Amino acid sequence: MERFEIAVIPGDGIGNEVMPEALRVLEAAGSRYGVEFAFREFDWSCERYKRTGRMMPEDGIEQLRGHDAILLGAVGYPGVPDHVSLWGLLIPIRREFDQYVNLRPVRLLPGLTPPVRDVSPGDIDFWVVRENSEGEYSMLGGRQGEGTPGEMVMQASVFTRRGTDRILRYAFEFARRNRRSLVTSATKSNGIYHSMPYWDERFRAIAEEYPDLSAEQEHIDILTAKFVLRPRHFDVVVGSNLFGDILSDLGPGVTGTIGVAPSANIDPERRHPSMFEPVHGSAPDIAGRGVANPVGQIWSAAMMLDHLGAPEAGAGVLAAVESVLASTAAPLTPDLGGTARTGDLGGAIAAAVAD
Amino acid sequence: MERFEIAVIPGDGIGNEVMPEALRVLEAAGSRYGVEFAFREFDWSCERYKRTGRMMPEDGIEQLRGHDAILLGAVGYPGVPDHVSLWGLLIPIRREFDQYVNLRPVRLLPGLTPPVRDVSPGDIDFWVVRENSEGEYSMLGGRQGEGTPGEMVMQASVFTRRGTDRILRYAFEFARRNRRSLVTSATKSNGIYHSMPYWDERFRAIAEEYPDLSAEQEHIDILTAKFVLRPRHFDVVVGSNLFGDILSDLGPGVTGTIGVAPSANIDPERRHPSMFEPVHGSAPDIAGRGVANPVGQIWSAAMMLDHLGAPEAGAGVLAAVESVLASTAAPLTPDLGGTARTGDLGGAIAAAVAD
Ligand SMILES: CC(C)[C@H](C(=O)O)[C@@H](O)C(=O)O
Ligand SMILES: CC(C)[C@H](C(=O)O)[C@@H](O)C(=O)O
Repeated sequence: MERFEIAVIPGDGIGNEVMPEALRVLEAAGSRYGVEFAFREFDWSCERYKRTGRMMPEDGIEQLRGHDAILLGAVGYPGVPDHVSLWGLLIPIRREFDQYVNLRPVRLLPGLTPPVRDVSPGDIDFWVVRENSEGEYSMLGGRQGEGTPGEMVMQASVFTRRGTDRILRYAFEFARRNRRSLVTSATKSNGIYHSMPYWDERFRAIAEEYPDLSAEQEHIDILTAKFVLRPRHFDVVVGSNLFGDILSDLGPGVTGTIGVAPSANIDPERRHPSMFEPVHGSAPDIAGRGVANPVGQIWSAAMMLDHLGAPEAGAGVLAAVESVLASTAAPLTPDLGGTARTGDLGGAIAAAVAD
Repeated sequence: MERFEIAVIPGDGIGNEVMPEALRVLEAAGSRYGVEFAFREFDWSCERYKRTGRMMPEDGIEQLRGHDAILLGAVGYPGVPDHVSLWGLLIPIRREFDQYVNLRPVRLLPGLTPPVRDVSPGDIDFWVVRENSEGEYSMLGGRQGEGTPGEMVMQASVFTRRGTDRILRYAFEFARRNRRSLVTSATKSNGIYHSMPYWDERFRAIAEEYPDLSAEQEHIDILTAKFVLRPRHFDVVVGSNLFGDILSDLGPGVTGTIGVAPSANIDPERRHPSMFEPVHGSAPDIAGRGVANPVGQIWSAAMMLDHLGAPEAGAGVLAAVESVLASTAAPLTPDLGGTARTGDLGGAIAAAVAD
């Protein structure tokens, strides 16, 4: 029996409500598919920050290092500025563990009500491959002339050859491995003068290594419009840290909700633990009421199983999600138009996994 | 009779096909509402670049300076890198004339087929106020270690106090003047470390000057999803150069097409000519076939009339566009599901203006 050590960080807000459901589904998948988990929970969060002045202990990264994977809930809460909470926990984990791929499926699940017309499950089914370690998310920069009329802020983005090539190559490899034929690059080389023409240059160079795949590029402005106008068109979409972030919220939005979308922060070289988290945030507006949708967290756990080398278990969890959402008696949370509670939906999925 | 000197730059691709329709509609509006135009045409374009090595002559900005307004078609064509063509014409005009506001309506016109369900004309009706002079569109930065494995590109964004405050204030003033109650700020202060927290800080400060208006902020990722999920919600959305660019393509995408969307590059202090151009690009794929949709260019001309102080004429042109599109016999171009040609649709609108 395989045994995995999982670091569990529920984080803030609804992170604390959806995480137990994911653990319950993982236990069910473990029994069914012969996988064992040791969960170690960490209370790193904005609450901890308010108490101690730090989102995680100074040796936080070291504490995580020995684990096979990290399951994260959501980070951020009113009263702690976002850029403090995120740069004190989420972003350092992504970077210290060189989780340079953020992989996010965009898939119309059964039971959702998409805002766009004439689409059924199966019609929208693509992947966003987001650069996750550099680019627009950068601490380089600062402010000058604070409080004066001449005040200004400079913000740098950094695109390295190594960082750009490895994410582009990952996108093409992923497309080939998953029988996808088209890789779309998100750019803005007509407006952003240095970094985006460089991104395009590298995209062209890497695309040449994959003559069996089609490659196209679109400026991010029109690309967002095409996500809405032609969502069936896409297969694998690769973007910088910022563009990938935008597209991986917009894509799930087009399927009806970001509440169910998962993500994987991956170190493909497996030198470090990878991290799995829903796309949604801590949702302070509904936190504490037990009505959050646990599917994003559960689907993230399924991606974790795939990554850990238990794809049968991962597929089993995803199939359970789909069959529960498709059933007419599904206990849907309010965001999906139902009246069920977080635990009802999580419980139904856990039961379907065990079945 | 008022007389306006208009600089006309058709530019590239379909710019050359839609511009004559806008001029024809302006002539019709002129006769009807008692306004006279002197049009001076400039052949500045990628074609000119191929011939002369410059998108516009060295004294191009000087040549434009005396005009009351600039009407632009579209810039960019295969064979000339986008960042060359745009930074050689469009962007210098925006900057030299300090057209720091890019104002873009998002409005569901009659006759369009929106990709989202359950919306009718009137349901989607908001404005994007885009910063147009600084931010992410910056020439600061460069490449180091070219061709080596250590190669890297740095791209700076610049947010000044003056530049940030004036666009935010414009958004609030615009909202107040146009009886809009909500201003939404596009941010990404949870990921972009220096510039976006600064943007938020200034947004909070300026919002305090307008206690009669509601103010909210959304991170750009979830904001794009909300454009699709709740397009009725928005009134005035203010964003940086890049975020405003994205939102003003996505918004029209949600209404069914970016082919009809207009934009105004405004110097609100009227020290310099302002520039009016459709949101769409030069569309090389359909250029030369006479089937481009002229509505974006015509609606841009209507915005120009408003700006020139002929709001009756501007409203007349927009009403003509709406009545033509709403009629069952409308000569629609292929992008709108019809078989009409550019001139058919432009002609019908000109006739409706004269009526
Ligand atoms: C062509 C390009 C540089 C331009 C921009 O990004 O400003 C266009 O997309 C626009 O929206 O006017
Ligand atoms: C919370 C925020 C920093 C984060 C990001 O932008 O990376 C989130 O939006 C995400 O997509 O994981």
